[in-house]
Amino acid sequence: MTQKAFQDYYPEDVSHCYGCGRFNPLGLQIKSTWDGDTAVCTFRPRAEHTSVPGFVYGGLLASLIDCHATGTAAAAAYREENRPMGSLPAFRYVTASLQVDFLKPTPIDRDLVVRGTVTEIKGKKTVVAATVHSGDTLCARGTVIAVRMPESMAPKS
Amino acid sequence: MTQKAFQDYYPEDVSHCYGCGRFNPLGLQIKSTWDGDTAVCTFRPRAEHTSVPGFVYGGLLASLIDCHATGTAAAAAYREENRPMGSLPAFRYVTASLQVDFLKPTPIDRDLVVRGTVTEIKGKKTVVAATVHSGDTLCARGTVIAVRMPESMAPKS
Repeated sequence: MTQKAFQDYYPEDVSHCYGCGRFNPLGLQIKSTWDGDTAVCTFRPRAEHTSVPGFVYGGLLASLIDCHATGTAAAAAYREENRPMGSLPAFRYVTASLQVDFLKPTPIDRDLVVRGTVTEIKGKKTVVAATVHSGDTLCARGTVIAVRMPESMAPKS
Repeated sequence: MTQKAFQDYYPEDVSHCYGCGRFNPLGLQIKSTWDGDTAVCTFRPRAEHTSVPGFVYGGLLASLIDCHATGTAAAAAYREENRPMGSLPAFRYVTASLQVDFLKPTPIDRDLVVRGTVTEIKGKKTVVAATVHSGDTLCARGTVIAVRMPESMAPKS
């Protein structure tokens, strides 16, 4: 059985994000799962995600790191409470701060593997360190400070 | 006469970037121009650029800051050499490092204004400080370290 992704547990009304929402038909629809204590997301860039021909544009890598990290923060919050993902109340995180170092030109024609590890959880704040590999090459590295979604962003029901 | 944007001067073979390439029909096609010493780009998010309903996803803001900053770095390099944009050899920058602080939820249904100022030029490295406003609200702030495009990324002719 395939492991259900973090993003598949997001409540329906917060599942429209361009990066990670399963209900955004034009979006990236990234899928993140645990591999031990590391959260992993494999993504195949689309042709339009080019920077200069042959390579992906930095904004894609930033978006992957960003959405993978907020998903990782949510999944880690359930783990902290020993609750299964999908149980209520739901956890949803947004990004307070994103830092990305672009280390190598990143090929567009093969899978990218994004890995995230939680380096700190402090109240509503979770810090996630992320890497992006193309094959064995470390192409980008980033850090995300994720925070619980503020009430002001919550969809009105 | 409308001022020609920095991106309109990019050589054809490096004008396919998802964020700023005028030949990427699916991309953002941002346009940046000088307003004195500040580079300005106005962008209207598309419906798919949502995070939670009503607001834009962080990856869009990161992409806007990123591509606006590399454009600003290129434009500043021409200024440094007192050369008109479009003169040869062409300047094209890529991002070495991107940092974004997301300060406020950013509405999706109105224009965003990205401003960039060069804070440092040192050889092939240019640092650009950027802001993103929605109306009078400062929604995001970022810093980009842009570097001249390495030979390894240059399109083979």
